Amino acid sequence: MVIAPLKELEEDLQRVEGVVLELLQRRGGAVRLPAELMFKSGGKRLRPALVLLSSRILGQRPDSAVKIGAAVEMVHGASLLHDDVIDGTFMRRGQPTLNALEGNRFTVLLGDFLLCESLLAVSDLNQVVLVQVVSESVALMTLGQLLELAHQGDPFLAEADYLRIVEGKTASLMSCACKLGALLGGASPDQAAALGDFGLNLGIAFQIVDDVLDFWGDPKVLGKPVGSDLGEKKFTLPFLVAMQSSEERERGRIEALVTNGKLANGSVQEVVSWMDCHQARPRALELARGYADLARQALGRIPAGPARLALEEVLHYVLERDL
Amino acid sequence: MVIAPLKELEEDLQRVEGVVLELLQRRGGAVRLPAELMFKSGGKRLRPALVLLSSRILGQRPDSAVKIGAAVEMVHGASLLHDDVIDGTFMRRGQPTLNALEGNRFTVLLGDFLLCESLLAVSDLNQVVLVQVVSESVALMTLGQLLELAHQGDPFLAEADYLRIVEGKTASLMSCACKLGALLGGASPDQAAALGDFGLNLGIAFQIVDDVLDFWGDPKVLGKPVGSDLGEKKFTLPFLVAMQSSEERERGRIEALVTNGKLANGSVQEVVSWMDCHQARPRALELARGYADLARQALGRIPAGPARLALEEVLHYVLERDL
Repeated sequence: MVIAPLKELEEDLQRVEGVVLELLQRRGGAVRLPAELMFKSGGKRLRPALVLLSSRILGQRPDSAVKIGAAVEMVHGASLLHDDVIDGTFMRRGQPTLNALEGNRFTVLLGDFLLCESLLAVSDLNQVVLVQVVSESVALMTLGQLLELAHQGDPFLAEADYLRIVEGKTASLMSCACKLGALLGGASPDQAAALGDFGLNLGIAFQIVDDVLDFWGDPKVLGKPVGSDLGEKKFTLPFLVAMQSSEERERGRIEALVTNGKLANGSVQEVVSWMDCHQARPRALELARGYADLARQALGRIPAGPARLALEEVLHYVLERDL
Repeated sequence: MVIAPLKELEEDLQRVEGVVLELLQRRGGAVRLPAELMFKSGGKRLRPALVLLSSRILGQRPDSAVKIGAAVEMVHGASLLHDDVIDGTFMRRGQPTLNALEGNRFTVLLGDFLLCESLLAVSDLNQVVLVQVVSESVALMTLGQLLELAHQGDPFLAEADYLRIVEGKTASLMSCACKLGALLGGASPDQAAALGDFGLNLGIAFQIVDDVLDFWGDPKVLGKPVGSDLGEKKFTLPFLVAMQSSEERERGRIEALVTNGKLANGSVQEVVSWMDCHQARPRALELARGYADLARQALGRIPAGPARLALEEVLHYVLERDL
């Protein structure tokens, strides 16, 4: 599944997938089949696309971007595997997850393995800075997830903490993808930093939109029920802004509704209605647009050209998808 | 707790511990306390000792060995965390494990975080080859663990598969520690390979002895009950050699005993008696000594001196501890 602004990259994204499968193949049996299953099940390939496009901002088309794109996609795969174990997720995009099929033990180990394989692929390019960018980004990602875990179940989470969580768990790898691409394409340190900023703000906007879609998106398209975050006691931006503008009695009522044991189907609908009253959807999307503006400003610091244009299109897609 | 042959390294091993704590400190709250708790709970610091000693085989004492020793200990810590989640272990050395205290989610993430921090520390030295040695070793480690998982519950596991598992899950990181040290100390490729071989064979001998101790060691010293591997349906070398020399009827009886649901206390004793009849302990130890001989031969390929002597003492300790 290649999203519209990435149509031109389709061939290169297929090469990325080919490299992932090749890297897994050489280790043989135990990991190949389940990992292939996972990587073939789709996904938007957004992160390798960011690597590819960022590598082209100075007009070059470095071949190494395909391998690094594969490495970033493997890091992403590893984090999804560990996420599914952590969240106890058994379905994703309408398919059973690997932990549902093979168990948590296998899934934790396969995630570790993919992370190492990814770092091996990155170190093949013989540039320590690339390894550092990836390791730092995954460290920040896990710190974001640890922060999310620490706040799980807290319906009064501060917006600033929500944003720190999102910056770590989602935005840091997108920032990493852009920075890696920039470095491969011969960008100056300033240009690489600008693309890193672009990826970071794009990532935050992406996650906010994701969190909006979790409440107002089409469950058939998403492959998960409306309000699934709420079911996992994750309180995301739309919920938090509605809490902010609610009066104390209402806050208490909503708190009781969402923290008392398992959430009933009717309760999700009630929470959505309450959020609608507080304009939670447009307010969250406004914040997402603010981050998209920051991303666009960061792009202003790199030379105009087809690659920059394509990155702008990706940004546009992230904001408008299915809304 | 510093073992006898490492007394001379005590000060440097404390510096290793200092570096680990320093690396964790800079990330602040969420990870520092639990990770400190884990690293302060002891362990033999065998892997950093291997880095330190291997770095000195040409008479140098590179300061970088302390940092790399810390990195290897963090990789080891990360793998213990994931192991405990995978095995559902709640006690280690008489203390509750981190997953018992903080839950599986936290523990999986902290393991990921430690692995990334470790790779960041390694990449600080600006030598891609060091990153490659670590990433490859952790990839092999997870492959060994995946193989173990695939064979878990099979009392007829082939000895060759047992050895492949051990080579991955235990020996690869010890081999990595020795290779890293050698590279830091200016060893030639041949010498680095010799030290890698030493670490690999030391690691296999180490794990076999560990598996013998699980049946015949002092549960108070080990901090776990006799036959705990059996309880997890892990069939290790002593068990496997006894199976090999048992007649079909006896094999069937033992199979029924160890695979039918939860193992009773009396059953462990019965299995140990059966293994004693088949000389399982001395036969397993003989195999361990064979690997120790290979390790000693590998040491013969590096120059004599105090560091080589200390590595020989480590080898001796690994074979003779608590036996």
